Amino acid sequence: MELLEQTVRAIPALDQAVMERTRRRLDSLTKPPGSLGMLEDWAVQLAGITGRPFPRIHDKWVVVMAGDHGVVEEGVSAYPAEVTPQMVLNFLAGGAGVNVLARMAQARVRVVDMGVNGELALPGLWSRKVREGTANLARGPAMSREEAVAALEAGIEVAQDLAGRGADLLATGDMGIGNTTPSSAILAALTGCPAEEVVGRGTGIDDERLAAKVAAVRRGLEVNRPDPQDALDVLHKVGGLEIAGLAGVILGAAARRVPVVVDGFISGAAALVATRLAPASREYLMASHLSEEPGHRIMLAELGLTAPLRLRMRLGEGTGAVLAFSLVEAACRILSQMATFAEASVSEK
Amino acid sequence: MELLEQTVRAIPALDQAVMERTRRRLDSLTKPPGSLGMLEDWAVQLAGITGRPFPRIHDKWVVVMAGDHGVVEEGVSAYPAEVTPQMVLNFLAGGAGVNVLARMAQARVRVVDMGVNGELALPGLWSRKVREGTANLARGPAMSREEAVAALEAGIEVAQDLAGRGADLLATGDMGIGNTTPSSAILAALTGCPAEEVVGRGTGIDDERLAAKVAAVRRGLEVNRPDPQDALDVLHKVGGLEIAGLAGVILGAAARRVPVVVDGFISGAAALVATRLAPASREYLMASHLSEEPGHRIMLAELGLTAPLRLRMRLGEGTGAVLAFSLVEAACRILSQMATFAEASVSEK
Repeated sequence: MELLEQTVRAIPALDQAVMERTRRRLDSLTKPPGSLGMLEDWAVQLAGITGRPFPRIHDKWVVVMAGDHGVVEEGVSAYPAEVTPQMVLNFLAGGAGVNVLARMAQARVRVVDMGVNGELALPGLWSRKVREGTANLARGPAMSREEAVAALEAGIEVAQDLAGRGADLLATGDMGIGNTTPSSAILAALTGCPAEEVVGRGTGIDDERLAAKVAAVRRGLEVNRPDPQDALDVLHKVGGLEIAGLAGVILGAAARRVPVVVDGFISGAAALVATRLAPASREYLMASHLSEEPGHRIMLAELGLTAPLRLRMRLGEGTGAVLAFSLVEAACRILSQMATFAEASVSEK
Repeated sequence: MELLEQTVRAIPALDQAVMERTRRRLDSLTKPPGSLGMLEDWAVQLAGITGRPFPRIHDKWVVVMAGDHGVVEEGVSAYPAEVTPQMVLNFLAGGAGVNVLARMAQARVRVVDMGVNGELALPGLWSRKVREGTANLARGPAMSREEAVAALEAGIEVAQDLAGRGADLLATGDMGIGNTTPSSAILAALTGCPAEEVVGRGTGIDDERLAAKVAAVRRGLEVNRPDPQDALDVLHKVGGLEIAGLAGVILGAAARRVPVVVDGFISGAAALVATRLAPASREYLMASHLSEEPGHRIMLAELGLTAPLRLRMRLGEGTGAVLAFSLVEAACRILSQMATFAEASVSEK
């Protein structure tokens, strides 16, 4: 609990003076003011996060956290739970979607076992296993409050480690069969939205499983009565281990002034938890893509974030976040490489 | 006229057999079917365009075409017309937004003078000047039908030249103070939408100029009576030289089976003209970003294209299209680099 509390307290506000300087610089460049839209907003945000008028990205990582979910016994997923460890192997072998997109973005992948069922001692895998999968959230708490704190703190340590290695841009990614269910439950618990509005088809479930999933979320909220004013209560009762870990990554990164690109629905649930635990962490986040999960739109509105990519994706793993890395880099390059009106002798308005 | 007619006739249908093979391949990869959304659609499209089951992108170009517009005398723009040649110099010096983003995307920039006012003999500039700016479309035809054909054919030749050099992905870009006005007029003429729905603030005009711009478009349509069934009639009466050139680039690229990423509102007007002249060319197009111009949404719907980037951009130059290059490459890499369920020993549904 100490590391968590320290980290929450350590998150600084953005550097407003550098942000103002960056805004002026952007308006001096050869383009109508504001015409690069979100790229300009991100340039200002990155300057404020890093405290540098010309932020640069040198060392990108996507943190893919894996965990299993007791709630799969309610029949909420199209895939069997054994796919979670199988995909962890796929990540380590470099064959998954996130590996392909990370290679293209020249980013590295850190795979972390937060709570996969079964023994997984594999070269390249970081083990931060808090327990072997969560309990079924539809029948009781997914984990204890202490386990949720342990998972958050493991995530903080992962971010601290990467920041210590020089990481200057992180993305969040997830793997866990069944994990849209706790993500929906977290969203419903924290916002009060009814289950049927925040539950979607995940990897592509049929109507029958969709009904089971809505029922599981509804029952999870009834059985556990999570306190919407207490994000830790929500997280341990209806959350997941990889979700808790990713919330920790966000907090740890923010405390080290490292920006974080948030993937889709599951990462969004982690971001929601992180920003409830530490509102200042929101300023360190950039949304990436709008997922096909219907609840994601509600989640982004709640976070006050806008997703620049609309690709109808619903894969997770950090795939959407890694795709947005090039947009973050574009924001930096615009700022440092474009000519000013004066330099290019172009007339202003 | 002969080159235009030949080119329109030469555009092949996409290779359906390769597309079907690509769809099957995508469904064998370690992800829920369809979960990479538009990346999967683009992979299939690129396979169909190139006839290759594993399309690759090696040689990317953005074609930035410049032209001036007689309609600026109606007070439709926030910037003086002299900015058009000034920005051409900026493109050649590498200081504009599109240069920065093209360098990042490892793409080259081909700058073409389609009809800038004044003499512009500059190293690196391709001159295909059809005339020195258009006439004021609010008072009569912007150019003659023959000039519109000449501009289209110049664009076809630019695409042929690049394809001959090995270009395998093109983007369209524009520069021309005042050119959202002819773009709105083309959209209104071809779709029947009223002027006030398709006219926006361009580079950022005030209410007074906005009213003048709506009036100019309305008067242009009244004075010229362009025939919505005849895209060439619309193009020469209310179009622009760079718009005609970009429509030619699209036709020329399609005839050589080269995919084209379409930038925002001005490029969209060119795409609308191209697809009316040759409906088969539509299959070669990928939209990039949704511009802040209100008419762009209508334009994309008319084209049947979806823009994956939502960045609130309104700069033109091809900036949005070049940003989307990384998404096109992601589509190719997913197809060729992801592991299959069998290869990775991952269980299916």
